[in-house]
Amino acid sequence: MNTFEVTILGSGSALPTLKKRPTSQLVQYSNKYLLIDCGEGTQVQLRKAKVSYIKISHIFISHLHGDHYFGLVGLISSMHLLGRVADLYLYAPAELKEIINLQLRASNTQLRFNLVFTELASKETELIYENKDLEVHTIPLKHKILTNGFLIKETPRPRKIKAEKLKFYEVPHYKIDGIKFGEDFVTSEGETVPNEKFTFPPEKARSYAFCSDTAYREKIIPIIKGATMLYHETTFLERDSALAKKTFHSTAKQAGSIAKQSEVGKLLIGHFSARYTENDNTQFIAEVKQEFQNVEIAEELQTFEVG
Amino acid sequence: MNTFEVTILGSGSALPTLKKRPTSQLVQYSNKYLLIDCGEGTQVQLRKAKVSYIKISHIFISHLHGDHYFGLVGLISSMHLLGRVADLYLYAPAELKEIINLQLRASNTQLRFNLVFTELASKETELIYENKDLEVHTIPLKHKILTNGFLIKETPRPRKIKAEKLKFYEVPHYKIDGIKFGEDFVTSEGETVPNEKFTFPPEKARSYAFCSDTAYREKIIPIIKGATMLYHETTFLERDSALAKKTFHSTAKQAGSIAKQSEVGKLLIGHFSARYTENDNTQFIAEVKQEFQNVEIAEELQTFEVG
Repeated sequence: MNTFEVTILGSGSALPTLKKRPTSQLVQYSNKYLLIDCGEGTQVQLRKAKVSYIKISHIFISHLHGDHYFGLVGLISSMHLLGRVADLYLYAPAELKEIINLQLRASNTQLRFNLVFTELASKETELIYENKDLEVHTIPLKHKILTNGFLIKETPRPRKIKAEKLKFYEVPHYKIDGIKFGEDFVTSEGETVPNEKFTFPPEKARSYAFCSDTAYREKIIPIIKGATMLYHETTFLERDSALAKKTFHSTAKQAGSIAKQSEVGKLLIGHFSARYTENDNTQFIAEVKQEFQNVEIAEELQTFEVG
Repeated sequence: MNTFEVTILGSGSALPTLKKRPTSQLVQYSNKYLLIDCGEGTQVQLRKAKVSYIKISHIFISHLHGDHYFGLVGLISSMHLLGRVADLYLYAPAELKEIINLQLRASNTQLRFNLVFTELASKETELIYENKDLEVHTIPLKHKILTNGFLIKETPRPRKIKAEKLKFYEVPHYKIDGIKFGEDFVTSEGETVPNEKFTFPPEKARSYAFCSDTAYREKIIPIIKGATMLYHETTFLERDSALAKKTFHSTAKQAGSIAKQSEVGKLLIGHFSARYTENDNTQFIAEVKQEFQNVEIAEELQTFEVG
């Protein structure tokens, strides 16, 4: 089974502290590296995680509050200085393109690689990237400005072949791919043999959903339904729910409720407001557990396996 | 005597590493805090140095290569989140204004404080700030893009009064300020008493010169002549002088030569290229000492007294 894991680079909220860096996560799938958000200091966190910048091919930016992207232009500049030539794919709200270009112009920098920009503007979920292994869909969130989460999921897995049955029915080689994806087989005598004769069910496609920043939003449930792992922001505890509402953030209990209703496998939480201390961590967990049991704090520089 | 000291927040070059942050320095004079350059991660370094962001009133940006300013918009955003209302004065090349404004617009942020922007465009030295204690002058440098160093110097110090002489000559109170700054005194009988009768020479006005990034440039010598302390970049060792020339940076020996010709009191060096390791530190010092003896490495989070 391919590696599919998430490394937390930063899980703090807007004000960086000595203990918490702003949001950034690295998703590794097999030998592919995707970055979600890129708060200030992400480069240094990548170094701590011993990940070469060069390996990152796709960057997804949820929204243009600084704690989710102020480290991006520095990362792009460093990639340039380190001699990158491979295309870099960037998915973000439109204004980010001009923000980056203006800064490159000011330093008289001509990137040696293509920055391929995909503007995220829709309020509906969209498929924004796919390859043979993975699909990335947006998860429109509810925040002060246009914000997307991202659902990274494996493409449908092939069914597992029962080799001896293929032989018995003399299935020609060119038919096998179809059978792996559920086709029945018609023999030369015109007899239809149902797919289940030849195959076992496939492994479940794994998926990771990233939802930050957002107010409580039930509309996301059909999109993230059954995700293997969900990161959902929990900026506040329930006692500060008025603040959560005012600032379009979520409480721990609300994140737990979303996880329960979405029937995800596991929940990671983070983006705690700087008003809380580490002593409050147990309370964040306790509040989530009123709704959903399999929860962990997205600790910085920790790696979580998806599934 | 007023406090006058420089805290090194970052002294690395373009590529941030686990050990070196990009350029930023905090200058404290009495209860006034000035920031020179603001590379990515400056906020965290300020926290480590236990300096409240709010105290900083003036920020001087040498040039628009990212390692000298990518931390600025984050710092400004944090000042806003922390409730700053006092004006913030920013001195930088023109493009920085739009770079900041574009990012504030993208996050729909209306700053609660005034950002008072002074555009630095001249190729000649300019007085850009003065108060009762201090003057700040630009030091036009030689780099790939428009770059200024900054000379921060005390305003001329008053001469020290000999109180018993004032009494003897019956000098009226309103004349004393003039005498402190060198005026002679004319008695009611029309006799001119020379200033030296009433005063001792003042303490020498202290000054700090920041010069980064720059190629070797003798034109700066008259501007920084006799400075109490000079920070001069030394991106390269002499063995890489071809690279220094090509990239408009200086070698350690060149910085030593500038310090010697400028007759400064002390030299701080930094901005070493990431190609060197800590083992090369002694060589940086040794090269400078071929020209100038009183030299130290601008170690991060170290504070240096001016004078």
